[in-house]
Amino acid sequence: MMLLDGQPSASVPADDRALAYGDGLFETIAIDAGRPLALERHLARLEHDSRRLRITPPARDAVYEDLARLTADCDRAVIKIIITRGRGGRGYRPPIGTPSRRILSRHPWPGLPGPDAPLVAWLCTHPLSSNPALAGIKHLNRLDQVLASADWPAEGGFEGFMCDTSGRLVEGTRSNLFLLIDGKLVTPDLQTCGVAGIVRAAILELSDELALECVVRSVEPRELAHAEEVFVTNSVIGLRSIAHISGSHGVDVPGSAVARRIAGVLAERGIIV
Amino acid sequence: MMLLDGQPSASVPADDRALAYGDGLFETIAIDAGRPLALERHLARLEHDSRRLRITPPARDAVYEDLARLTADCDRAVIKIIITRGRGGRGYRPPIGTPSRRILSRHPWPGLPGPDAPLVAWLCTHPLSSNPALAGIKHLNRLDQVLASADWPAEGGFEGFMCDTSGRLVEGTRSNLFLLIDGKLVTPDLQTCGVAGIVRAAILELSDELALECVVRSVEPRELAHAEEVFVTNSVIGLRSIAHISGSHGVDVPGSAVARRIAGVLAERGIIV
Repeated sequence: MMLLDGQPSASVPADDRALAYGDGLFETIAIDAGRPLALERHLARLEHDSRRLRITPPARDAVYEDLARLTADCDRAVIKIIITRGRGGRGYRPPIGTPSRRILSRHPWPGLPGPDAPLVAWLCTHPLSSNPALAGIKHLNRLDQVLASADWPAEGGFEGFMCDTSGRLVEGTRSNLFLLIDGKLVTPDLQTCGVAGIVRAAILELSDELALECVVRSVEPRELAHAEEVFVTNSVIGLRSIAHISGSHGVDVPGSAVARRIAGVLAERGIIV
Repeated sequence: MMLLDGQPSASVPADDRALAYGDGLFETIAIDAGRPLALERHLARLEHDSRRLRITPPARDAVYEDLARLTADCDRAVIKIIITRGRGGRGYRPPIGTPSRRILSRHPWPGLPGPDAPLVAWLCTHPLSSNPALAGIKHLNRLDQVLASADWPAEGGFEGFMCDTSGRLVEGTRSNLFLLIDGKLVTPDLQTCGVAGIVRAAILELSDELALECVVRSVEPRELAHAEEVFVTNSVIGLRSIAHISGSHGVDVPGSAVARRIAGVLAERGIIV
């Protein structure tokens, strides 16, 4: 089920710049009991990052209307919002100030492991492209995540951790990453790459209330071996503790108590399911 | 005029991975007197880079057939070939070994300045993302080129030169870059970013015949000030000498004789118009 600029559609005009250049950005929003979670946070990020890309942000009323139509009859679902720069498939030079294109689509809630499942992560070999000018943005240039995910280990797993081209740990293929080290919550900085996730931002904002010192800094893969807890976050999976990191950096992660406490607060606030 | 997997179409299914992730690659081919230039070189690159992205390369016969239909009635034109990984708009993890999607479209030959026009280039502020795992590939993740082109100078110009995140000169927004320094042809290496262009490769191959020493190495923007010649190449613009580089590195480039000689050889070989 998809709406293109408010009209039901199953296709996109071939001259859209998202197809030609990945010239756009997106949001993935959890729908719970028919209600979009953290909607204002998602739309604020979408507007902020649209401006960084010099793409016209969508009108909020139009997004609200699309959402109402797509979620009228559902309990749990996932809504994806893609904003593209619109028409113009030939020539990189972007039209500035022209209307963007709004694509909202509804997808089934994914099958997720239960809250106590011992989740396994691994280190991806494909690195994240480095560019401060694009860092943090959930843009449509996602070949890095695609290629990192192509090496999903044969034995399976829940998430792959990605490093930047300097070998620093940055994020999961579809999630942000937190480590509890010496009782402090550590999450990689996103100065040169990575997506600045909604749930990540909420955790950083709530650190006082959580009575947790949060440190945003450069993180090395070897630090995973010293972490008391490791967890990943995104708007659909919520917050998930990792029990084991496979591969040459293979390590069992001892705990998940702090993660559970944070997940509880995030759920109370309506940020995750 | 567009063919999607051989069928006339003006749109692309919304679940195509090129739209969701820029999960694909492309070629831009000059048509002259109804004939595609350097076709085998383009198709060889397309196949090679498809494999690097683990995308199934298109069948050559199908591409030949599409090309014949699209160029049956034209003299000069531009053909763009996009190969996407195909269906699957949710989830980064790519299907491996599934059919890719082939999109061929025909576009008018662009209005290009005459061979003696004194062309101006400038230095873009937006840098190229750095990632050895993607370097050289003409993939669909082209936000860097889009954002670099957004800063087209008010006074106009022909091409913007892009640096990597370390400030080294790499290429033009839509072209490869050559400098003649001390009588040697220098072109930036593409170890961490940039597109390995067809015309660039042909020039490097022809260096013996051209009796020119060609050096592929790291290049600094300040070297533009010492260049005897500066020129850019791509499959449609061919080879174009730059007469002036504007901005804070502003410099007049003294010559273009070697460039003219190379352009002549490339045209004789049917690589450029």
